[in-house]
Amino acid sequence: MTSRQRSWWGWGWEDEALDAEQRRKLAAAVAGRLGRGDIEVRDPVGLADLRLREPRVEPPAGLGVRWSASIGDRAAHTFGKSYRDVVRGFAGDLDCPPDAVAWPADEAEVVRLLDWCADAGVAALPYGGGSSVVGGVEARVGDGYAGAVSIDLTSLDRVLEIDRVSRAARIQAGALGPVIEDQLRPHGLTLRHFPQSFELSTLGGWLATRSGGHYASVYTHIDDLVESMRVVTGAGIAESRRLPGSGAGPSPDRLFLGSEGTLGVITEAWMRVQDRPRFKGSAGIHFPTLAAGVDATRAVAQSGLFPTNCRLLDGTEAALSAGAGDVGALLVLGFESADHPVGPWLDRAVELCRDHGGTVPDGPSLSDAAVEARGGGRASQEGAVGNWRSSFLRAPYARDALVAMSVIVETFETSCTWDRFDALHAGVTAAVEDAVARVCGGGWVTCRFTHVYPDGVAPYFSVFAPGRPGSEIAMWDEIKAAAAEAVLAHGGTITHHHAVGRDHRPWYDRQRPDLFAGALRAAKATLDPAGVLNPGAVIDPA
Amino acid sequence: MTSRQRSWWGWGWEDEALDAEQRRKLAAAVAGRLGRGDIEVRDPVGLADLRLREPRVEPPAGLGVRWSASIGDRAAHTFGKSYRDVVRGFAGDLDCPPDAVAWPADEAEVVRLLDWCADAGVAALPYGGGSSVVGGVEARVGDGYAGAVSIDLTSLDRVLEIDRVSRAARIQAGALGPVIEDQLRPHGLTLRHFPQSFELSTLGGWLATRSGGHYASVYTHIDDLVESMRVVTGAGIAESRRLPGSGAGPSPDRLFLGSEGTLGVITEAWMRVQDRPRFKGSAGIHFPTLAAGVDATRAVAQSGLFPTNCRLLDGTEAALSAGAGDVGALLVLGFESADHPVGPWLDRAVELCRDHGGTVPDGPSLSDAAVEARGGGRASQEGAVGNWRSSFLRAPYARDALVAMSVIVETFETSCTWDRFDALHAGVTAAVEDAVARVCGGGWVTCRFTHVYPDGVAPYFSVFAPGRPGSEIAMWDEIKAAAAEAVLAHGGTITHHHAVGRDHRPWYDRQRPDLFAGALRAAKATLDPAGVLNPGAVIDPA
Repeated sequence: MTSRQRSWWGWGWEDEALDAEQRRKLAAAVAGRLGRGDIEVRDPVGLADLRLREPRVEPPAGLGVRWSASIGDRAAHTFGKSYRDVVRGFAGDLDCPPDAVAWPADEAEVVRLLDWCADAGVAALPYGGGSSVVGGVEARVGDGYAGAVSIDLTSLDRVLEIDRVSRAARIQAGALGPVIEDQLRPHGLTLRHFPQSFELSTLGGWLATRSGGHYASVYTHIDDLVESMRVVTGAGIAESRRLPGSGAGPSPDRLFLGSEGTLGVITEAWMRVQDRPRFKGSAGIHFPTLAAGVDATRAVAQSGLFPTNCRLLDGTEAALSAGAGDVGALLVLGFESADHPVGPWLDRAVELCRDHGGTVPDGPSLSDAAVEARGGGRASQEGAVGNWRSSFLRAPYARDALVAMSVIVETFETSCTWDRFDALHAGVTAAVEDAVARVCGGGWVTCRFTHVYPDGVAPYFSVFAPGRPGSEIAMWDEIKAAAAEAVLAHGGTITHHHAVGRDHRPWYDRQRPDLFAGALRAAKATLDPAGVLNPGAVIDPA
Repeated sequence: MTSRQRSWWGWGWEDEALDAEQRRKLAAAVAGRLGRGDIEVRDPVGLADLRLREPRVEPPAGLGVRWSASIGDRAAHTFGKSYRDVVRGFAGDLDCPPDAVAWPADEAEVVRLLDWCADAGVAALPYGGGSSVVGGVEARVGDGYAGAVSIDLTSLDRVLEIDRVSRAARIQAGALGPVIEDQLRPHGLTLRHFPQSFELSTLGGWLATRSGGHYASVYTHIDDLVESMRVVTGAGIAESRRLPGSGAGPSPDRLFLGSEGTLGVITEAWMRVQDRPRFKGSAGIHFPTLAAGVDATRAVAQSGLFPTNCRLLDGTEAALSAGAGDVGALLVLGFESADHPVGPWLDRAVELCRDHGGTVPDGPSLSDAAVEARGGGRASQEGAVGNWRSSFLRAPYARDALVAMSVIVETFETSCTWDRFDALHAGVTAAVEDAVARVCGGGWVTCRFTHVYPDGVAPYFSVFAPGRPGSEIAMWDEIKAAAAEAVLAHGGTITHHHAVGRDHRPWYDRQRPDLFAGALRAAKATLDPAGVLNPGAVIDPA
């Protein structure tokens, strides 16, 4: 166990936050980018100055579950980590804290907690790493509850069993990404699911929200890595059979995947793991225009080559986060394998890109971990590809610092079929640029691809604009609404891998078939008869 | 449209059935295999001699839907095409025929039919190609219904729209496999979903039963090829949004996939299609023992090479259906691509097999359709691989002839994780051999793999044994029960791709989580409030 302290309002570990010098440099860069003389860098409200609503309920001692109603614990569990969450935390604007935070130590304690919540009419909010960016873990539950308890599952953090032959592992749902990998590494295995939130998100959170890893193709969502799941519902424990594939009725697991805690609390799952990759290959491919990059990426996505990384960055993103010069688009392309050198795969993908006008200034790069371990080989993380990767993982920490400068900095994402991408990209960009200009007087909207499919793509947009201290939430909400309306109008989904939570409800409710919502509500009524499981997320209780 | 006549009791087209000479040869082969002097070859009951229960209901003329209550139409829609179905049809033992068969010409007619069924308390049985092998289309619906109507959807048989950019097609659910491919071929596209029933099964049937294609890895089930679906339920029409991937709540499509007509009638779907493959490579690899073949197959399945074909046949199957001599196991391995030559993929897979003791008597074979079209190249369907393929597609016709000889010939299939395969194979084989010996006095049980996964495998068992005329059903039922019990006891699923229907209910009901069944029944109550949709399949109405 670590004794590192996590920020109660910001993204991550306090000792990983930008230091004073880094913040000063960032402020100078922001000032330059926004064309301002100076940037005020504010401080967050201190924990000692927070005023939270008095707790309305507390878990009875008889449950035998560790819990807390301290200001610090409640504040840290009040929000997820979206931009609006961090801004509200930073400002000390915590209007809906949970009444208590509980840390069940095992599944039996989860059962007792849920039983008590049902009996007492207390909303039960499953909480993993707390990295939701859609209001998925917050106690915004309406008036019908006696209180709300955040159920922090991070004590359920062990890899319980490993099946080396089938390459599978039984893992508790509260294990954070690095905690899982630390336990698999000695066996030469990896789950290889790396969302940007990896450091502070859990297996259970990934399953409940249909998380997307950084894997660009084939097995993109965590859904595809599940053999079986165990879920504590309000009506008992549901456990599916461990199977590599099945056609026996509708998939039980697929009902719980994406249910975001509204049907039950996932306590463990058998997951498909992999041998740790040995052979790698990558290339940073420059395109003169975004359109050329899109066509090349589509060709790679439809080639059956299945790259592990296939992220197209538009010109602005290429310059900002990968240091690539004056290009229309940059494709960060990668292949990995535990079994075979990936040269033929990479060569063909690069050839497809060249056919579409791409160039490879640094040349493709291949590496073999076994050779490198003996002192040979060439590092594969140089140049634009390496720059992009470190920038990717540090981004949430930088955002905390930007919040202190009242910069509006947030992302939204979607997916659409390839035939709709051009219109969606143009329409969404125009709508958001218009909103940014209207609301903020100017700003930037950029786009990259996070995942590619033979039939479509998952575009990921970033917004960067000057905010007015105290008005950031209202400003962002107006921009977000414009973005979401444009996404839906152009045939996209309100989320490819950020989930629904409470923030996406207005658009999700229009996107999903009404009859499916009815079926889901009926299912919820049987699994959560008291209606206490994460009310307000995804669907309302019947 | 074809004017070919389909057998009302047997598998397929009457002009494809074995002719007199082929039947004579088959009878001689069976006599030899069973060690008998001669084999009686009986004739099926004639249509004119069938006696069916009088129709209890008929669709009112006001519906405007074409329908029939003729003996021939009702008889042809009484059963699916399992062994027990063909035996009962052959004998004229049709105790639960539908009261009428209806052919809706469009979705509006489906709506009117279902409305009438709900109002009149008539069981509505969606019927695609009628190839169910699990009693999925038969009017065994209990006493609570005024009658039963088979809803034949094969008039909904068009590819409605093609999106070449995204490689997707909107296809009506009643289109048979060849009808779909005929419409996609001019566009250079293919759905590439080839179950053994391909010739006489429909898109809607595949979706409703989570069909497995002949593709051995990656995208095995039809589930993975779905962008969106349109379903007529008893509460209205549900349509999902066309997306390449999404994380917005539990997947609506996954609720209907595998629902086997109990939640609604699928009328159309946007499906992911592919460019027609140009490059092919294959090898028939011999192993001294089944165990060596299993280990090699697992290595290939876990390599990330994603073969399109990866079927391991045990020694008996290798000899019988591929003409391979004295081997412990034969691996039929294939790669295909529309984009690139598959040499590096095939070479590495063969190398993995050689590492596990495999040999390649005919050598690996590569081909390029473009080169072949110019008169060059080498056919890739020679030797054991080609023998296996033609045998695969002709098998259902041969079975019809074997039924006439009172041979018990049927298959069952499952999937399990790799760690359980050895015990499952040994346990299931022993249980079924024991049952076959007890019931039939002897017979054969063989095994092959139909699909492989990184974490497990789908074994497919075939049974061949002498039956006693008139007792075949009871004999097979005893063997099947022994097989199903052993499969479940060893951690398998009751079905990997044959669905649940009515025949698998006793074991499916033990396999699936009870709480999931409750949720599914609740969902059904909202989508089929009258409880008339395919009652008895998968789940009972609440």
